[in-house]
Amino acid sequence: MARAVLTEAELDVALASLNGWAKSPERPAIHKAYRFKNFVEAFGFMTKVALLAEKLDHHPEWSNVYRTVEITLTTHDSKGVTELDVILATQVEALLA
Amino acid sequence: MARAVLTEAELDVALASLNGWAKSPERPAIHKAYRFKNFVEAFGFMTKVALLAEKLDHHPEWSNVYRTVEITLTTHDSKGVTELDVILATQVEALLA
Repeated sequence: MARAVLTEAELDVALASLNGWAKSPERPAIHKAYRFKNFVEAFGFMTKVALLAEKLDHHPEWSNVYRTVEITLTTHDSKGVTELDVILATQVEALLA
Repeated sequence: MARAVLTEAELDVALASLNGWAKSPERPAIHKAYRFKNFVEAFGFMTKVALLAEKLDHHPEWSNVYRTVEITLTTHDSKGVTELDVILATQVEALLA
């Protein structure tokens, strides 16, 4: 069964606890751009996120250019942002805490 | 010193040996989309590419959505496609050979 899409109010509450995460302007998703010292740091971070994502069975849409990593989260099955996206974003933030 | 940008003719010759790689339509770059069995395969590939890129000190612009990986190569210092991009693309292809 697909997860329930968060209401705008629920999403606003979730984003208030997710530093730097914001609603994507063009689609129902949330995103954040991370910047690191260099490529090794950036890809090291991606490796950790990949393991979290695989464990959750919920995967990001993401891109990397040298020391930047942009992550977009959405739940395709639900056609919107769900609790799963908030969980993954929270775990990603915890990596950097 | 920045590497020399390949001429169109030189680039055509190089691309003839790079299965599936093509000139990017909107900018001086080459790109290829790879599709794998699942996320683990896709990210495993990315990890190998990351190590090649770091060793060459030449890094891709790339994105991943579940089992797809899109790689774009260009040489920013030279504002175009150089031998370095062809070398990295060739090494990436060799990973899958």
